[in-house]
Amino acid sequence: MRRYLFLTALAVFFSWTLIAQTLLSPNGNQKLTFELQNGKALYSLEYKGKSVIKPSLLGFEIKNQPSLADGFSVTKTEQSTFDETWEPVWGEEKTIRNHYNEMAVTLTQASTGRVLLVRFRLFDEGLGFRYEFPSQAKLAHFVISDELTQFAMTGDHKAFWIAGDYDTQEYDYTESRLSEIRGLMEKAVTANLAQLPFSNTGVQTSLQMKTDEGLYINLHEAALINYSTMHLNLDDKNFIFQSWLTPGANGEKVYLQTPAKTPWRTIIVSDDARDILASRMTYNLNDPSKIEDTSWIKPMKYVGVWWEMITGKSSWAYTDEFPAVEIGVTDFSKAKPNGKHGANTANVKRHIDFAAKHGFDGVLVEGWNVGWEDWFGNSKDFVFDFLTPYPDFDLEGIRDYAKSKGVQMIMHHETSSSVRNYERHMDRAYQFMNEHGYPAVKSGYVGSILPRGDNHYSQWIVNHYQYAIEKAAEYKIMVNAHEAVRPTGIARTWPNLIANESARGTEYQAFGGSKANHVTVLPFTRQLGGPMDYTPGIFEMDISKINPNNNSWVNSTIANQLALYVTMYSPLQMAADLPEHYERFSDAFQFIKDVAIDWEISKYLEAEPGYYLTIARKAKGTGEWFVGNVNGYEKRNSTIGFDFLEAGKTYVATIYADAADAHFRNNPQAYTIRKVVVTSKSKLSQASAPGGGYAISIREASKEETKGLKKL
Amino acid sequence: MRRYLFLTALAVFFSWTLIAQTLLSPNGNQKLTFELQNGKALYSLEYKGKSVIKPSLLGFEIKNQPSLADGFSVTKTEQSTFDETWEPVWGEEKTIRNHYNEMAVTLTQASTGRVLLVRFRLFDEGLGFRYEFPSQAKLAHFVISDELTQFAMTGDHKAFWIAGDYDTQEYDYTESRLSEIRGLMEKAVTANLAQLPFSNTGVQTSLQMKTDEGLYINLHEAALINYSTMHLNLDDKNFIFQSWLTPGANGEKVYLQTPAKTPWRTIIVSDDARDILASRMTYNLNDPSKIEDTSWIKPMKYVGVWWEMITGKSSWAYTDEFPAVEIGVTDFSKAKPNGKHGANTANVKRHIDFAAKHGFDGVLVEGWNVGWEDWFGNSKDFVFDFLTPYPDFDLEGIRDYAKSKGVQMIMHHETSSSVRNYERHMDRAYQFMNEHGYPAVKSGYVGSILPRGDNHYSQWIVNHYQYAIEKAAEYKIMVNAHEAVRPTGIARTWPNLIANESARGTEYQAFGGSKANHVTVLPFTRQLGGPMDYTPGIFEMDISKINPNNNSWVNSTIANQLALYVTMYSPLQMAADLPEHYERFSDAFQFIKDVAIDWEISKYLEAEPGYYLTIARKAKGTGEWFVGNVNGYEKRNSTIGFDFLEAGKTYVATIYADAADAHFRNNPQAYTIRKVVVTSKSKLSQASAPGGGYAISIREASKEETKGLKKL
Repeated sequence: MRRYLFLTALAVFFSWTLIAQTLLSPNGNQKLTFELQNGKALYSLEYKGKSVIKPSLLGFEIKNQPSLADGFSVTKTEQSTFDETWEPVWGEEKTIRNHYNEMAVTLTQASTGRVLLVRFRLFDEGLGFRYEFPSQAKLAHFVISDELTQFAMTGDHKAFWIAGDYDTQEYDYTESRLSEIRGLMEKAVTANLAQLPFSNTGVQTSLQMKTDEGLYINLHEAALINYSTMHLNLDDKNFIFQSWLTPGANGEKVYLQTPAKTPWRTIIVSDDARDILASRMTYNLNDPSKIEDTSWIKPMKYVGVWWEMITGKSSWAYTDEFPAVEIGVTDFSKAKPNGKHGANTANVKRHIDFAAKHGFDGVLVEGWNVGWEDWFGNSKDFVFDFLTPYPDFDLEGIRDYAKSKGVQMIMHHETSSSVRNYERHMDRAYQFMNEHGYPAVKSGYVGSILPRGDNHYSQWIVNHYQYAIEKAAEYKIMVNAHEAVRPTGIARTWPNLIANESARGTEYQAFGGSKANHVTVLPFTRQLGGPMDYTPGIFEMDISKINPNNNSWVNSTIANQLALYVTMYSPLQMAADLPEHYERFSDAFQFIKDVAIDWEISKYLEAEPGYYLTIARKAKGTGEWFVGNVNGYEKRNSTIGFDFLEAGKTYVATIYADAADAHFRNNPQAYTIRKVVVTSKSKLSQASAPGGGYAISIREASKEETKGLKKL
Repeated sequence: MRRYLFLTALAVFFSWTLIAQTLLSPNGNQKLTFELQNGKALYSLEYKGKSVIKPSLLGFEIKNQPSLADGFSVTKTEQSTFDETWEPVWGEEKTIRNHYNEMAVTLTQASTGRVLLVRFRLFDEGLGFRYEFPSQAKLAHFVISDELTQFAMTGDHKAFWIAGDYDTQEYDYTESRLSEIRGLMEKAVTANLAQLPFSNTGVQTSLQMKTDEGLYINLHEAALINYSTMHLNLDDKNFIFQSWLTPGANGEKVYLQTPAKTPWRTIIVSDDARDILASRMTYNLNDPSKIEDTSWIKPMKYVGVWWEMITGKSSWAYTDEFPAVEIGVTDFSKAKPNGKHGANTANVKRHIDFAAKHGFDGVLVEGWNVGWEDWFGNSKDFVFDFLTPYPDFDLEGIRDYAKSKGVQMIMHHETSSSVRNYERHMDRAYQFMNEHGYPAVKSGYVGSILPRGDNHYSQWIVNHYQYAIEKAAEYKIMVNAHEAVRPTGIARTWPNLIANESARGTEYQAFGGSKANHVTVLPFTRQLGGPMDYTPGIFEMDISKINPNNNSWVNSTIANQLALYVTMYSPLQMAADLPEHYERFSDAFQFIKDVAIDWEISKYLEAEPGYYLTIARKAKGTGEWFVGNVNGYEKRNSTIGFDFLEAGKTYVATIYADAADAHFRNNPQAYTIRKVVVTSKSKLSQASAPGGGYAISIREASKEETKGLKKL
């Protein structure tokens, strides 16, 4: 990630005191205007001559100080251009171009002598801007009571939104006009105790919108480091969003000292939804990798002892005997097993065998360590030690068995959101992973935060997630953090953050089900900041077949599940279903075995948030291509070309598609698999069922291999 | 501490369901009555037939559950006797007898099925009792909203009190009737931003009272582990105190899981004030040492680079250049020094020389590490790294120089109450101490707690102090924690906690001055739970002579300062004044050089809280005795005998006393030193000035040494 293939940095500096200034993106499509009106600072954005953001205020309320929101004069303005190409350790593309025009406006508040700088970076796909507080005696240590940044919309746009919340993003998306958010808020909050909206018009980022004129607008943030997570609160009379920062335990938002900078506030905009998916702006606004040697960071495809607990077939806990467990004191060796503990040695070895047989890199095991008897909902401080296995989990035996089979064990650190406890044990827990050869950890932050009263998305806890990532890097450990704050591109800087959950994942399909079009929204929202450990690959949609007491239904077809391996980009991909289900549908399972997890090129063929998207990706190294299409609630014909393939070459494509009568609700396991010959000139018209989709694997073929195959 | 010299444990068990039961102390002076009245549990205490505690309620409010305060029946009662003698690692005596009668009452609340046990231990000097919550399905994890323990006084006693406060005990004591507390509260709070009373009748423990009948009653707690610090709130119509627990950031008091136990609530009572000082009940109610090898725990007498900063002559900070410091980023090597940095190499070496010359064990240096420029009042998270010295502090050079002089360096870890930051750096900081040979650390918790919103005395932060002590023990490090919670005898269990501040120390004599009788109260209050690093030994009372901008006056005479080395017991004793002041009064300084810091026997000769106390102690090993007398506001004649000396032996006593016209306010440096011959039959009548006192060193002498000396 630190090798720049191509670097051009043209810095042209100007300095003046005009009170309005414009900046164009490199291709001229985006136009930023900064202006001062009666001492207030405003910015606005146009795309191809159309207004996207109307003049919107900038500034802050500072605790025990005058506002830093008016009385400004512009004391300096600098413009520059930047163009580089960098190579991520893993990603949707082998190289990423970072090309923008920049304007830095220095604002001085004469009445207080305080200075604030707003740095705008205008890319062809949108705008990023942040505030910078230079070192100054009159603003040394300070507390932001409120960030006043506005995003003034031009109308009552359509939005895909989830309720603003300080602790969870695990919501289904609601599609509505901005004016309808207030009325739909109550319904948007599902029966999950962790969901607690802060306002009737508060929503989370990334927020994907669409205007009546067909503009796609996305609001998010980049490089959330040492700051509070930004939500958006809507003035639904004027369609103005204002930043709403997550408070800490004492109600305050952000503690800073100068020099300081905020995260970038980002606005991605295009008249083509595919450009939203293709944007790398969020990564580009983050710093280059701070990890020198990244050779140990490697994408992984994995299975796990997990879905059986999620569905309620087995348990994380070993025993039902103890009303309360005291780590280091409670004696599990004499406890009566509950008979349904998933993380037992035999079951784990069965999964290792399965992984080895089918070429998976790793096996995740949850519930291996003591403490699951009372881990949830008890505000328990010393809840896990991350070291001590249950009596039926033979840690060394499993470690050696996995090694003998060429499979890597993936560690699991559920913290129960007891953050101090995790930090106290972190060094030892990471050392333990090193000692036993675990390359990656799935960490979890389920439940209310300890220190009590704090929130998952406050500055204090954001700093914890960052601490966990940086400390893991010291130990050469990859992190896949669940229930942590949604990512903002920091994996560019810390590429050992290989995935996050931080949205409503597949588990909710066993908790009552998610919307069938959920996966057509996530790539426009959650995925912009970094990969999601969505844990796809569910083949058995009737959860009651796994656990008679669980009547959940997975709102998806098998073809849709396969497509997710392409559409939900992640360097960490799970095949989440039970091994026996894969053995039952071994022909469909072949796609999961074949699909790559690291990419040279990605092509966004079709896209409409909430309705469909089709992506083609070229695997790194092998020359193979994989295509995924996911579809919303309505049956739809997807039409794509294959001009991404090398001209003149012949390929064999295996198409895994919904059967004609497939449907997420009543016929999800109806799929067809066919092999066809394709070239760069081929076209495909393929129907996708409601909640369905298709997946295609494509590899170059000799003439002999194409014999008898139909040409597309 | 783990060797029991003598151990008798007679356990006699009874079981019945009577609703009132009494227990006598081993000598029969104390009588506890436990009774049930309409399902409510009450206890009361008598001393020599006089009521001390009237029937007082027991119980709890539990969050989201019915009260655990009524509807009780007694389902089991057990009585037993315990008698052991144990040997502390350091202390006021070589051996401590732990002798009590015990009654454990099991209470069952029929309406909920919950069970609560109250364990009473009745010593000859008072009562300790605690609540125990046995493991039970109906009370597994729970939150104490309020502890309802009452201490119903028999009248409007006199009390020595400091205001209830969640964050500091650094108050002067107020002497008043209980009924006067409300009216005096405002005045009791000095101009110190950290002082914030929670109630107009709230006071802290340990609380020393005296009845009109001449009974001395002390309320405190023992073994404060994983619980919130108890204050007392007074119903001043009925003179009933109720426990007032310190809340955490979210307002809740205590999070527990069963089995659990509270700290002991203690009532020490006697008709002789000396018995309060002689009580070891607080230690006895704590568990035996958990440190196996205690050979590395050694009392220390030390000097330091400290008083010069406290008085404002020099500074902790190295430079005045930076409005804000970023640890690891700010470059101090190029900063302009402020010219008054105390912790510079030359000054430290001067102190090492002084320590070596006069036989001190150690040198404390504050302000050695970067971060002091903006450490206070900024709610700064990453405020210190505990590793990086300022450019003018040659860590290795100083370390080697000290070693060559046979002096040990004492580490200083000011945390600025940024507790998470300290825990993140603690392992490395302790390792660093091991690497450089620092045997002890003075830690500090000045300012508001981080995590923000929490309090110094909440369960969460109490757990931090404990974590720091136990982690230090792993590294064989002694801890002297300042601004931490006041001690409750846990040094029995963790004898590496060699001292605390946790009260108004000598530093306040340079912050405007403390009351002249302050040191006649502390041994009855603060000192009951463990030694105080009071930092005595101030010889120059006019602080403006050190710093012309500081008009503070030390309200004490030199003789009083010397006596503190005896009366304020601590295994860690500082000679706090500047070396030049000791050189000026080298004859008085001799006592500080001579006085022991670890004791075989202590004899409490005279005592009246707020007025005077006289203590004689025999040094461990040498056979020398030292006597200290401190006096309150009125000039007083102290009359003591020397029958603690071995009969038939002749000793030389050096008496350091106030001159006839000495006075803490206008003539503090007037003292006399005389040598006399004493035997076990000698008597001394010695005047002590207002705010004065005397100190005596006594050693066995040959006949030749006694020649020409007057016999007392």
